[in-house]
Amino acid sequence: MTTPRFGRIGDGPSAPAGGEAFAELAASGGGRVVRSASRGQQDPAGQWYDQAEAEFVLLLAGAARLGFADGTERSLAPGDWAVIPAHCRHRVAWTDPAAETLWLAVHLPAT
Amino acid sequence: MTTPRFGRIGDGPSAPAGGEAFAELAASGGGRVVRSASRGQQDPAGQWYDQAEAEFVLLLAGAARLGFADGTERSLAPGDWAVIPAHCRHRVAWTDPAAETLWLAVHLPAT
Repeated sequence: MTTPRFGRIGDGPSAPAGGEAFAELAASGGGRVVRSASRGQQDPAGQWYDQAEAEFVLLLAGAARLGFADGTERSLAPGDWAVIPAHCRHRVAWTDPAAETLWLAVHLPAT
Repeated sequence: MTTPRFGRIGDGPSAPAGGEAFAELAASGGGRVVRSASRGQQDPAGQWYDQAEAEFVLLLAGAARLGFADGTERSLAPGDWAVIPAHCRHRVAWTDPAAETLWLAVHLPAT
């Protein structure tokens, strides 16, 4: 299939209050590009993602805070990106409950 | 290496007039995330990219037009994305010469 596809990042599933919604925009060869919307969603304290894949995230709208297993946190505003290497334990510590937070997430195969 | 990295998508190399500038933000397992800035850059008519990898692009600022080997063109405004499958022949037909166009490009390994 060599036909291109197009879309607008603002179009997609809305996050329910306290939750999140995902849409896969592209996938190939173990890599994936995902649009993610969240509204007040947060991962429980002490519950870490420990992924076999590296992840790149770009915050497009809203506000969020990422937490890491070393105790550090990082606030993200629109335009901020993060690269989370494979097995870097992390969680979403906070997203704005008053507005939708929109992320682009790229899952890259492990090296 | 499991330490996260952070940045702002607005920070990076500026495009020269008529040209483009790239910065690789993440790479793993044959996938790559690249920040690209262009200012009036366009690929010569009739010169097509024919890539072995699939590509996802998201226009973040500015304005651009993609051209395809079937003769169609597609204008992109901020928030517009495109998925260009492997071997889908395409070119950058136009980018705004008056302002910088900022892209996020994701190269996904072939399936």
